[in-house]
Amino acid sequence: MQSSIQLPVMKVTGDQAEAGPDALAIEEPLEIRLVHGPVQARISQNLAVTMRTPGHDADLAIGFLFTEGIITDPLAVDDTQHLPIPCSENKQNTIQVSLKAEYQPKLDKADRNFYTTSSCGVCGKASIDAIRTVSAVGRFAAQTLQQNSEADGDPLLDPAILRALPQKLSAIQPVFADTGGLHAAALFNEAGELILVREDVGRHNALDKLIGAGLASSRNVFGRSILLLSGRASFELIQKAAMAQIPIVAAVGAPSSLAVSLAEEFGITLIGFLRANRFNIYSAIHRIQLLKKSV
Amino acid sequence: MQSSIQLPVMKVTGDQAEAGPDALAIEEPLEIRLVHGPVQARISQNLAVTMRTPGHDADLAIGFLFTEGIITDPLAVDDTQHLPIPCSENKQNTIQVSLKAEYQPKLDKADRNFYTTSSCGVCGKASIDAIRTVSAVGRFAAQTLQQNSEADGDPLLDPAILRALPQKLSAIQPVFADTGGLHAAALFNEAGELILVREDVGRHNALDKLIGAGLASSRNVFGRSILLLSGRASFELIQKAAMAQIPIVAAVGAPSSLAVSLAEEFGITLIGFLRANRFNIYSAIHRIQLLKKSV
Repeated sequence: MQSSIQLPVMKVTGDQAEAGPDALAIEEPLEIRLVHGPVQARISQNLAVTMRTPGHDADLAIGFLFTEGIITDPLAVDDTQHLPIPCSENKQNTIQVSLKAEYQPKLDKADRNFYTTSSCGVCGKASIDAIRTVSAVGRFAAQTLQQNSEADGDPLLDPAILRALPQKLSAIQPVFADTGGLHAAALFNEAGELILVREDVGRHNALDKLIGAGLASSRNVFGRSILLLSGRASFELIQKAAMAQIPIVAAVGAPSSLAVSLAEEFGITLIGFLRANRFNIYSAIHRIQLLKKSV
Repeated sequence: MQSSIQLPVMKVTGDQAEAGPDALAIEEPLEIRLVHGPVQARISQNLAVTMRTPGHDADLAIGFLFTEGIITDPLAVDDTQHLPIPCSENKQNTIQVSLKAEYQPKLDKADRNFYTTSSCGVCGKASIDAIRTVSAVGRFAAQTLQQNSEADGDPLLDPAILRALPQKLSAIQPVFADTGGLHAAALFNEAGELILVREDVGRHNALDKLIGAGLASSRNVFGRSILLLSGRASFELIQKAAMAQIPIVAAVGAPSSLAVSLAEEFGITLIGFLRANRFNIYSAIHRIQLLKKSV
């Protein structure tokens, strides 16, 4: 599927105008449908509509189901397919995920308003508690991350490996270079080698695509990995990283206050403002090998 | 309310680390509640939870109700107030909007999945048709924008006025300068003078805050105005601009394919990649005064 199109635009420099082509990132709605239940009583339901860039739709759908806590095991997925819906534009904007008959999805998790279930209304602390309490997966992720970190002792990461990542991402992000309109999520191993990359007009979608693709891998690609985000780090992106048990998240942009709180809570090392010569560490600093500046 | 906080972070340059403070944009959940119905049978319901930067919460709530088509008249709002919910952090993360008893909100519009109501499933064309068909406000906005443009003849805008806008926004965006973590939406008149500006970690929220604040004004601030977006222009941002009948939208970043389709459909002039010396025009070019380059 195409992820960009050429359109005629008017390019203005000073007061001078010149018509010419411009490449635009494609944005289209994707309906995610879930089929589940025993053979004699299958249920088909619409879960969500997201505005996404076409391509890797199955990764997106599976990543979404997993990071929302609707499925906790990627092996629960029996099949994914685009539904052929008659449409004048002949586009494939509905993806259907069929679960194995014996698997029970946790569909109460599909309520995006679960923050409000906390007894204390909505506040930062309550939101994080709600995620830990409501989401068994989230709780497991937090425990595992902290155990990995404390018991086994993570290997210390050389800052030079981190500082090299944005350049590596630029080198492999062709559609962004073309359109300026896509977010990227990329997964690197602890040696700084690229494992996976996905792009999308929506940064949540880029990360869901990446996590969906990672889940399809025969080995655990997330353990000891580094997630690179092309933009800012928000609460929801850290939440998704925690669901996939990714220990290090590095953003080219700024983190939000709640992203830092959540990263601290889950023992995730959060890096912001990552550049070729510098970065900030907001949480779980013990994974990064550093020389303290003598003042 | 504070929109940024100082946190201790580790700042790494090369392999050298130094502890120091960093300003972060605050991200907190906001629950939007609506109270409506006749005096003897008032209904109170939760409409949405959004991750936002505290501040201008009433603008955000009213802008959200309006751009989602739940209310079409800002005078329908009787009162807004933060609900005092007991919480250890003593934060104000619930805002309640009370409508006048005689006003009937259109709550079927609160279903964010309305794209799927189109007979042809989900595709770009269907999504736009759905907005026009489902939303009486959207249809009205499109007609009015086109009538204004065709019948009355919009005044032609000097490109120099557009090119000066990003610098004007930078000069008045203190929290972004501080944190690097906020999106901004700013409204200018046709002379390029600032009318309103709002910031938020979420770009949809920044625009809802701006539109909510504009609706509270005693005069129509949107007619003949220019909306400046600090980031990219997506479908949903153009949809919100159309609801407020804003004729010109200029983004510092890239537009998406569906943003351009929607702007064309609604007669909105869409500008992308706006810089001090250049920009691209994607739709409704007739509002911009240009010299065609002789080749």
